[in-house]
Amino acid sequence: MSDKRIPVAILGATGNVGQRFIQLLEAHPWFRVAEVVASDRSAGKRFDEATDWRLGPDMPEHVRGLEVLDYDADIQSPIAFSGLPGEVAGEIEQRLAANGQAVLSNTSTHRMEPDVPLMIPEVNADHVAAIEAQRKNRGWKGYIVTNANCSAIHLTLALKPLYDAFGIDAVLVTTMQALSGAGYPGVPSLDSLDNVIPFISNEEEKLETESQKMLGGWSADGGFAPANFVLSAHCNRVAVRDGHMEAVSIRFKQPATPDEVIEVFESFRAKPQELGLPSAPPQPVVVRREKNRPQTNMDRDTHNGMASVVGRVRECPLLGTKFVVLGHNTIRGAAGASILNAELFKVEGLLPV
Amino acid sequence: MSDKRIPVAILGATGNVGQRFIQLLEAHPWFRVAEVVASDRSAGKRFDEATDWRLGPDMPEHVRGLEVLDYDADIQSPIAFSGLPGEVAGEIEQRLAANGQAVLSNTSTHRMEPDVPLMIPEVNADHVAAIEAQRKNRGWKGYIVTNANCSAIHLTLALKPLYDAFGIDAVLVTTMQALSGAGYPGVPSLDSLDNVIPFISNEEEKLETESQKMLGGWSADGGFAPANFVLSAHCNRVAVRDGHMEAVSIRFKQPATPDEVIEVFESFRAKPQELGLPSAPPQPVVVRREKNRPQTNMDRDTHNGMASVVGRVRECPLLGTKFVVLGHNTIRGAAGASILNAELFKVEGLLPV
Amino acid sequence: MSDKRIPVAILGATGNVGQRFIQLLEAHPWFRVAEVVASDRSAGKRFDEATDWRLGPDMPEHVRGLEVLDYDADIQSPIAFSGLPGEVAGEIEQRLAANGQAVLSNTSTHRMEPDVPLMIPEVNADHVAAIEAQRKNRGWKGYIVTNANCSAIHLTLALKPLYDAFGIDAVLVTTMQALSGAGYPGVPSLDSLDNVIPFISNEEEKLETESQKMLGGWSADGGFAPANFVLSAHCNRVAVRDGHMEAVSIRFKQPATPDEVIEVFESFRAKPQELGLPSAPPQPVVVRREKNRPQTNMDRDTHNGMASVVGRVRECPLLGTKFVVLGHNTIRGAAGASILNAELFKVEGLLPV
Amino acid sequence: MSDKRIPVAILGATGNVGQRFIQLLEAHPWFRVAEVVASDRSAGKRFDEATDWRLGPDMPEHVRGLEVLDYDADIQSPIAFSGLPGEVAGEIEQRLAANGQAVLSNTSTHRMEPDVPLMIPEVNADHVAAIEAQRKNRGWKGYIVTNANCSAIHLTLALKPLYDAFGIDAVLVTTMQALSGAGYPGVPSLDSLDNVIPFISNEEEKLETESQKMLGGWSADGGFAPANFVLSAHCNRVAVRDGHMEAVSIRFKQPATPDEVIEVFESFRAKPQELGLPSAPPQPVVVRREKNRPQTNMDRDTHNGMASVVGRVRECPLLGTKFVVLGHNTIRGAAGASILNAELFKVEGLLPV
Repeated sequence: MSDKRIPVAILGATGNVGQRFIQLLEAHPWFRVAEVVASDRSAGKRFDEATDWRLGPDMPEHVRGLEVLDYDADIQSPIAFSGLPGEVAGEIEQRLAANGQAVLSNTSTHRMEPDVPLMIPEVNADHVAAIEAQRKNRGWKGYIVTNANCSAIHLTLALKPLYDAFGIDAVLVTTMQALSGAGYPGVPSLDSLDNVIPFISNEEEKLETESQKMLGGWSADGGFAPANFVLSAHCNRVAVRDGHMEAVSIRFKQPATPDEVIEVFESFRAKPQELGLPSAPPQPVVVRREKNRPQTNMDRDTHNGMASVVGRVRECPLLGTKFVVLGHNTIRGAAGASILNAELFKVEGLLPV
Repeated sequence: MSDKRIPVAILGATGNVGQRFIQLLEAHPWFRVAEVVASDRSAGKRFDEATDWRLGPDMPEHVRGLEVLDYDADIQSPIAFSGLPGEVAGEIEQRLAANGQAVLSNTSTHRMEPDVPLMIPEVNADHVAAIEAQRKNRGWKGYIVTNANCSAIHLTLALKPLYDAFGIDAVLVTTMQALSGAGYPGVPSLDSLDNVIPFISNEEEKLETESQKMLGGWSADGGFAPANFVLSAHCNRVAVRDGHMEAVSIRFKQPATPDEVIEVFESFRAKPQELGLPSAPPQPVVVRREKNRPQTNMDRDTHNGMASVVGRVRECPLLGTKFVVLGHNTIRGAAGASILNAELFKVEGLLPV
Repeated sequence: MSDKRIPVAILGATGNVGQRFIQLLEAHPWFRVAEVVASDRSAGKRFDEATDWRLGPDMPEHVRGLEVLDYDADIQSPIAFSGLPGEVAGEIEQRLAANGQAVLSNTSTHRMEPDVPLMIPEVNADHVAAIEAQRKNRGWKGYIVTNANCSAIHLTLALKPLYDAFGIDAVLVTTMQALSGAGYPGVPSLDSLDNVIPFISNEEEKLETESQKMLGGWSADGGFAPANFVLSAHCNRVAVRDGHMEAVSIRFKQPATPDEVIEVFESFRAKPQELGLPSAPPQPVVVRREKNRPQTNMDRDTHNGMASVVGRVRECPLLGTKFVVLGHNTIRGAAGASILNAELFKVEGLLPV
Repeated sequence: MSDKRIPVAILGATGNVGQRFIQLLEAHPWFRVAEVVASDRSAGKRFDEATDWRLGPDMPEHVRGLEVLDYDADIQSPIAFSGLPGEVAGEIEQRLAANGQAVLSNTSTHRMEPDVPLMIPEVNADHVAAIEAQRKNRGWKGYIVTNANCSAIHLTLALKPLYDAFGIDAVLVTTMQALSGAGYPGVPSLDSLDNVIPFISNEEEKLETESQKMLGGWSADGGFAPANFVLSAHCNRVAVRDGHMEAVSIRFKQPATPDEVIEVFESFRAKPQELGLPSAPPQPVVVRREKNRPQTNMDRDTHNGMASVVGRVRECPLLGTKFVVLGHNTIRGAAGASILNAELFKVEGLLPV
């Protein structure tokens, strides 16, 4: 029986995000992994010989026998999911987009460019309109659409319904981020055990700018107009495997009680839920009402790691409202985000297939 | 040769804070541990039989042979350092103070009472004046002086020089606190490993109110007048043994650049430094200039755990200035704080000896 | 539609093992949780009000509304799975067994009694014959069957095929055991972080005696005859959530090469596999061939936590053969073990239904 | 005032072991760090600019201003302590030894060579006699003396008094080793958190062969004759910062009770103790009598990390005796070991000064 699913390529397939793509696509109803691309070190080998699989005991069967292609390979799949390292992503992603591929990228390289959408389907599905401008500007047959930094995605998912309901004036966020966010080998164990590192390179800048781009608007004339509020971030690395916890204080334009905030979080639904996209969580934002939840270990896998989990919604004496939000950084915060974008694009007829 | 040092009693001697008192007093030039007090479970036993020592391989020699006294014992030492559990501290500490003892307490019970000083010698040494009022109000021969919650102490030490130099309008702080802050057995390992708990019971309230009391004034007429700025706290438990890390954003009354803030931190000296108190750190606030410091594991023992260590001083797009501060929670944040208070009182002739 | 599955009671339902039973039975094809039993502290409450659920974000739906029964309750279910604390298990389990229930227990209380089977279906399914003797001896309508200590189960699963193939003379095992083995709250985080504890109360004795009972025989005349080899254990607690790692050296009666040992491990199948029991792993012992596997974090969930995972099979200069074995301590090492016993009993007509 | 202490060079000064050398020599009475040597990446820079100091908040003052020399530099100090990476150690150490330096090395390169002593002063001080042979064989003015692998040192220290008292037939040891043993960056945090890795490259071989070389003899005619017993090792990496825990089972030639074993451990003293060497622990082997000690976190710093700490001495049903031994892997297990060797050589007139 032939597999009618759309073939996809995974760029950076041997890395942390690449492996997560492969895991999440193992039984995907619409997409199948047809090509795996990695650096010269791995190229030419069978995928299972080139890769130390780190997400559970065994590599999924469906990719074991694939030959690893090098960065210059002539990719056949109409969709390329990218978890490439920043230093090589620019050239490769652009080449594929020029050739006609839909490149859905986790890499930060193109995120802030003026004609590249930075998308979360629940937040700014209308930013897809920028694709047309991008193709025209660049003369490309395909396109690049990015998803945001892992901490920005969960912050933005939590902010979106509040932004729509109450307007936002100012946000202060302090993150406690997982080790997997730094990739592999990433953080040395001697720096992680019994330690907090109050610094992650470029993370605060990404969190501040990317969130505002996603919550802002797009117009054919004016391009992207970032949301117009102040956002300040403190980013910290803590000793957890997966799951970014973020402590958020927020000043709304129009005051709201904690109960109203909870109500807005819980009633939030958007396109992915309406369309029933395969990877969409039933609720994008889940509220925990226990006084000490969400907790990283217990709650990061909520709705298969595709939800943002909020808790401790209460008054902030300074900004009006405070809460915590937790989310899985390599699922909804990375690979799952790209896949959800691709699912939306399929339904909307934006895939080159 | 007779030991001329002042005898002190340790209340709650078998617990986490009690053990830290004993460790810090092992070779103290002015004080010696003469009495150890604990609950009925331990009373009557030799201290080394009653206690599982947890601060290094061996209990200090000087307390091994002491008999553990019960809560009703007739304490002889003129000074009592208290690490008593909250549920018993009230009655015992009051009884001793009434009897003429100087009670220097870590327990939260009396901290916010209107005639009880909550002291850090570098911050509010003038609050000792409240002792007189306290004695008069209560008809006591001795007195109770408290030190603050562990996260409040380090925040307040960092805020003090800024408060004096620039004035403070508003502070937002997010803590990442150590396991030892919860005592022993405290946090179960299953709740700590690979986890962040975004809640510590009553901690945010303590951090908010105690910091303001310490930075405020005292007058014989008006009593304590808390500092008049807004303070909002998010408190989190992370998997580190000792050392509370705190991410702080701050709005000054009079704007200041990061360099000015650093200059103020580094030039900060106060009474303990001027008097050369035995436990005083040479600098109360140490500034790290590396981009990724302080780190909990590396920096918590700075100046024997008696300093607050600040880093990442930079602009905050929302409140003007942001930085992190780290401090040892059971040394400067608990037992060391009481001892430094006692050292100040000795020099100032306030001890009943 | 009525649920035709056999109703079961969970004794000690609010504890760590109790919660694992409930999780594993959530979608079980043959059994459904009908009764939950716990101490007076919880009895009378709804299960979701009485219990802090710790296995993932949300308690399974099927038990939320059950009323917690107390230890004296008149249990209706024909099967009782027990995760009771040792100090109460004896009386309760005996009462139920006397009344006619099949009691399948994780508790150590009855494990070594001369008429109580200590069972792993792949190892000593024939020990069920002792049930008849037990009923006769004790005048019971039901019976008690136990499963072993978590470290003993995985050691014994690994030893069984070797015992049959080569005979065993001597075994030396050193364990590195998970925190969840100590229950909740269990090991304090201050004792676990950055530490190894080379002692677990009674664990070495259990590991030594229980393994030998399971590998030994049963006869109506002679009762249980433990396997006749020497077994020495070193038990250690390390900072992992789940999964006991065990380093094993072994002397066979009949020498075997590492390849022969691997072949025996890999070809091992037994009754649960032949019968296709719902919880049976396709292979009881899985062999990893990578030089650095199994690893606790990656491999403990192999076959849903029901397999023992072996690796590093090599020559031991002292005893002939050495390897490591890893297994999930609260699934195959506890709740899953009892459930597999119950599944076997159902097929063999031994359940009182 | 001129510093009359002997100048020493640290080879590999920026690495983990190099930093430990510098820390231990900060206030050494006989030696001072005069030269620091590292790879081209650091050479030519000031030491404090070339090095991320990881042993506490601040680099010791005494080395801050030293210029880092490259591997080809003309070393002036008569003593060179080496923590060089294995791939460069061979050539450099040999060149210095040829030139007349006393090279005291932690690196494994020369450890098992037939004319290179592998020394622990308490164990085989007589092996210094091999130096003469080494110089003659190789035509060197100086010499190389090595210390063993970190896990071998602590095992051998514990075995030595038993070997002398009872003779040893067979030893089986399972280690639980610290992260710092793998250097920096070393083990990735994603491989360490919530995990045990039952494999350390070449570690079992080193532990087996080095221990036997140290416990064996040396004769001018026959060279080194390894101790004649069987030793089998299982080596595991666990999530602790410092401190290797080792579970040991042992068969003596002449049977001994646990009490006799404890007596032999506690009465063990050797040359370093007799000579009062500055780094010598008062007791090389310290016995803990609590049932759950030593523990890594509490006991690794016993006698400033220079002692091996033994506990749980008890009968082994298989080999006769079992116990655990814990030791600091980068102090007595590495840098401190070399320093103690140098101290012995100074007293014995073996240093080229």
